[in-house]
Amino acid sequence: MPHLFRQQVRSKRFTGPTAGHCGEFAQANLAIIPSVYAEDFLRFCVRNPKACPLLGVGEPGQWNVPALGRDLDIRTDVPGYNVYRDGVLCEQPDNIVELWRDDLVVFAIGCSFSFEQMLARERIPLRHVDEGVNVPMYRTNIANQAAGPFGGKLVVSMRPMSGAHAVRAVQITSRFPSVHGAPVHLGSPAVLGIDDLMQPDYGQPVSIHEHEIQVFWACGVTPQSAIESARLPFAIAHRPGHMLMTDIPNASLAVL
Amino acid sequence: MPHLFRQQVRSKRFTGPTAGHCGEFAQANLAIIPSVYAEDFLRFCVRNPKACPLLGVGEPGQWNVPALGRDLDIRTDVPGYNVYRDGVLCEQPDNIVELWRDDLVVFAIGCSFSFEQMLARERIPLRHVDEGVNVPMYRTNIANQAAGPFGGKLVVSMRPMSGAHAVRAVQITSRFPSVHGAPVHLGSPAVLGIDDLMQPDYGQPVSIHEHEIQVFWACGVTPQSAIESARLPFAIAHRPGHMLMTDIPNASLAVL
Repeated sequence: MPHLFRQQVRSKRFTGPTAGHCGEFAQANLAIIPSVYAEDFLRFCVRNPKACPLLGVGEPGQWNVPALGRDLDIRTDVPGYNVYRDGVLCEQPDNIVELWRDDLVVFAIGCSFSFEQMLARERIPLRHVDEGVNVPMYRTNIANQAAGPFGGKLVVSMRPMSGAHAVRAVQITSRFPSVHGAPVHLGSPAVLGIDDLMQPDYGQPVSIHEHEIQVFWACGVTPQSAIESARLPFAIAHRPGHMLMTDIPNASLAVL
Repeated sequence: MPHLFRQQVRSKRFTGPTAGHCGEFAQANLAIIPSVYAEDFLRFCVRNPKACPLLGVGEPGQWNVPALGRDLDIRTDVPGYNVYRDGVLCEQPDNIVELWRDDLVVFAIGCSFSFEQMLARERIPLRHVDEGVNVPMYRTNIANQAAGPFGGKLVVSMRPMSGAHAVRAVQITSRFPSVHGAPVHLGSPAVLGIDDLMQPDYGQPVSIHEHEIQVFWACGVTPQSAIESARLPFAIAHRPGHMLMTDIPNASLAVL
């Protein structure tokens, strides 16, 4: 099913956000980095595993990454791309065939869609899903562990829920470290340097009900933020929400 | 070491609360129930496993329960007992040799001291320990699953901590279902029907710092509360804080 989905993306029969598609399979955040910076970026991911858990890394110039999917062509199989030049978002093409270079290295980073499937399976309501918006995300005041030019601050996503659901959500997501794992924080947003939950830096705000607590997870936007602050001459990422669909079953990512 | 400790209790060289003693070994809440009610009480425990996780159950009249400890004599090896008649606490003897009957059944129920050892090992501060008081406990408005005459409301203990420590505490205690396991609630005490955290029903209040969240666990006082509300003609429990020291290593209680 992910293989057919990627075929539809490749032929432009599918061009939208990927949320809700092929729900049993892991979707991935994408970072494509010139090899001269790839070693630094790899160390950045390893040093910040909650924000940048690696599902796969390619060889320089390799646009098919077999570990991620059968017959994958990373240049055409993602529904939208962000192209950065000197750290600035310049283009949002629907393929990167013309931009491909022999020195580019593919990084696939785990995505919260995987753990959200596990939460939904246990009937834990997700407010942003119920309200039909993107999950709210916030830049924190927590510095990432730097590597080479990559640094910046941790970005988190927030999901409000009841206390009992928060306990279960910690248990469930702890089993999935390769898709951000357990929350990084519960409760007061001020601890993370977040002033106003109603003004997220990415995504949309969601309502928070009485007696709910805010549950914060490390977010896959963190590496994109690190790419911007590193001001690389050239880099490519997926367009937010337009993820790489992999052949990896979410269930297979459980460590227990 | 627990064996020697019990010898000291038996000979009255030790008569105090047991917190902090033989830290590597499980201490147990004690309920001693006439056999005519024992089947109901056993079902009560099974139906309320977070509050009443069973470490061991004896046979009618059996005062040595080998699964709990070597050479154990339950009539003398606990530093203090509560004797209930018609649901009312009547005596607090330091042994129950004269009170023993051939129809009494011993229930040993897991105790939070075990998971507190696991939290302390990971340097998660416990406010009631730092402030030198008993953990604050609260009667909630959550009805226990009833069995025969046993019912009543869930009693919880509360430990305030940072959000990051709360995440870790959920992970750690989830591994130990036989000593209350994961928290039952995080955050707002009103959800549990608790009006004022500074006025616990058992134990002492503790200070709560800015940005901390309250973490609530099911508490081993719940069965004692159920015994009182059941108004049994006769029952015995440990005196609060004066627990049964078992030979069971806390580490062996981990399910993972």
